[in-house]
Amino acid sequence: MDERIRDHAETLVDWSARIDAGDDVVLRVGEGAHDLGVAVAEQLGDRGANLLACYDSEELTSAYLRAHDGNFESDPEYELALYERADSVLSLRGTRNTSASADVPDETQQAHARAREGIREARLDTDWVSTVHPTRALAQQAGMGIEAYREFVYDAILRDWEELAEEMTQLKEILDAGNEVRIRKESDATDLTLFVDGRTAVNSTASVADDSHNLPSGEVFTAPYDTAGQVVFDVPMTIHGKRVEGVRLVFKDGVVVDWEADAGADVIESVLETDGGAKRLGELGVGMNRGITRPTDQILFDEKMAGTVHLALGRAYDACLPEGESGNDSAVHVDLITDMRQDGTTLEVDGEVIQRDGVFRWEEEF
Amino acid sequence: MDERIRDHAETLVDWSARIDAGDDVVLRVGEGAHDLGVAVAEQLGDRGANLLACYDSEELTSAYLRAHDGNFESDPEYELALYERADSVLSLRGTRNTSASADVPDETQQAHARAREGIREARLDTDWVSTVHPTRALAQQAGMGIEAYREFVYDAILRDWEELAEEMTQLKEILDAGNEVRIRKESDATDLTLFVDGRTAVNSTASVADDSHNLPSGEVFTAPYDTAGQVVFDVPMTIHGKRVEGVRLVFKDGVVVDWEADAGADVIESVLETDGGAKRLGELGVGMNRGITRPTDQILFDEKMAGTVHLALGRAYDACLPEGESGNDSAVHVDLITDMRQDGTTLEVDGEVIQRDGVFRWEEEF
Repeated sequence: MDERIRDHAETLVDWSARIDAGDDVVLRVGEGAHDLGVAVAEQLGDRGANLLACYDSEELTSAYLRAHDGNFESDPEYELALYERADSVLSLRGTRNTSASADVPDETQQAHARAREGIREARLDTDWVSTVHPTRALAQQAGMGIEAYREFVYDAILRDWEELAEEMTQLKEILDAGNEVRIRKESDATDLTLFVDGRTAVNSTASVADDSHNLPSGEVFTAPYDTAGQVVFDVPMTIHGKRVEGVRLVFKDGVVVDWEADAGADVIESVLETDGGAKRLGELGVGMNRGITRPTDQILFDEKMAGTVHLALGRAYDACLPEGESGNDSAVHVDLITDMRQDGTTLEVDGEVIQRDGVFRWEEEF
Repeated sequence: MDERIRDHAETLVDWSARIDAGDDVVLRVGEGAHDLGVAVAEQLGDRGANLLACYDSEELTSAYLRAHDGNFESDPEYELALYERADSVLSLRGTRNTSASADVPDETQQAHARAREGIREARLDTDWVSTVHPTRALAQQAGMGIEAYREFVYDAILRDWEELAEEMTQLKEILDAGNEVRIRKESDATDLTLFVDGRTAVNSTASVADDSHNLPSGEVFTAPYDTAGQVVFDVPMTIHGKRVEGVRLVFKDGVVVDWEADAGADVIESVLETDGGAKRLGELGVGMNRGITRPTDQILFDEKMAGTVHLALGRAYDACLPEGESGNDSAVHVDLITDMRQDGTTLEVDGEVIQRDGVFRWEEEF
């Protein structure tokens, strides 16, 4: 076995999921994630945890959904009972075809998801962690060969998470104490101010100990309550199956008042028109994972890229809000990314430059 | 998809498991059984059953067991809750390596099995069915190429089960009414008498409706209470990982008093010495599946081969016994097979020839 797979499994079980002896673990193994599944099973055996392996196959689920009439039973009790009693759910994503679900009607997928809301909540109530095993299908989506893609994924995952968590704390403290975050880029006339006073930043450390559930992670995010100015998102991505590039948004009083896109304008339009909350920002996130050096068209990785900032149209996360306060609400949460690693780019908090040209001040002491 | 895979899935879901709308189905997908898993998922969706897919991987389980210290928690509650609430458990066997568990210590495997006795019972309490997807590893064990092996497996599985069930009823009625079953072969001096009065024969129709849980099936079996004479088993097989050939057993008053083997004598000796019940027969079975025309070193198939008889050393099945009576008891149940398709071979019940040279009297009207 590739030693990196074993290291990945160890990071998942120890740093991310904090598995102890006797824990009841559901291991969801993706179609292409068998090797990681074996490595995680080994770690679970070594820790004396209990193991139940589920098969998370897009082809199997798609075949089921395509054949079903769409009247799904609500939260089948046997599956609900399983997740209600589980301590941890480890999802090993790793598809063999990113388009495997393309021929399942949207309505069927949505009806299925709605009928399983209770199961989903029970799963989110456990110490769940989701991670990715590098498959050829994901390499293809990233436009990379498999060996280069494996290196990319393991660079992102096999980090010194303790050290990164400490670094993220510096940024979190600045954001928590700050009122206004300003992003400026000379290259594309981005000049956006986000208001965050009273909001709490979250360290996304890839550990359930910090309520962070994705491996890799490596971002600090908060929830702005107001936004003004304009921003250009120059990192291309796929949204709802379509290529989106060069999105420019103009905000006034927190709401998008003008916008354009070099590609995928129809997707952006449909997102913005979902509901009232979709025209406001729910998240400001700062990527801090230096193992991620290029976009691979997987939002889980792209938004963590060191030297980038992402903003999400739509729903805010409760963890960022003062007790009892509700943040921006929407049916959508769509992340868009701007690359700060360019001359004449700054991230300021209350007038102080925190990051210049994609480099934090504690890296270069400016 | 190979149309035979879809037919297999339909046979499994309709004839074998009798799945209805709303049934809570656990689908256990073997490492090499993905394609059959997709086909079964499609059928389950079409029937409106609920689906939870588990991953039944020998490599994963072996990695877990090898790393574990062997002190297993008894029946972890989350998994027990799942199986206690399931209506059906469909196991799609299909290994990619029949030796995948070779390096797991026997004691660990046994300790794991003992700790999961309650989960096993809960699973056997459902409408469970076990079937096999043809993989290269199984073809290799059978000494066949994959295409020929696929044909073999589908010949065994895609039968007119209703018609076969009717034919089996004829033999069941003869065995139920009979007292003494005698097997004679001129070719190897087999002459064995088995006493079955008071015992009930079971039609193994591959349907939960008849309490028959393997697909394929196709045998009628009962539990002799006494045995006298000698028998030669000329169908070679692998038992506990070792080749066994040409076993000759001599019975007196129901107990093995003499024995020899051309190959695997040590395995037979260790079976016979397990306990007192291991020297007595627990089962007399008559293979009736005409799709199975040759041994493939898979007992699930071999023992169903039309024109063969198998006898099991060890434990008897309760279904064959009069209410309240206990049959032969043992920790083992090891099937051995003799081929009746040879000149001068007869199967008699109370002196009447039921089968000659492997052909039933209703086939050729002798």
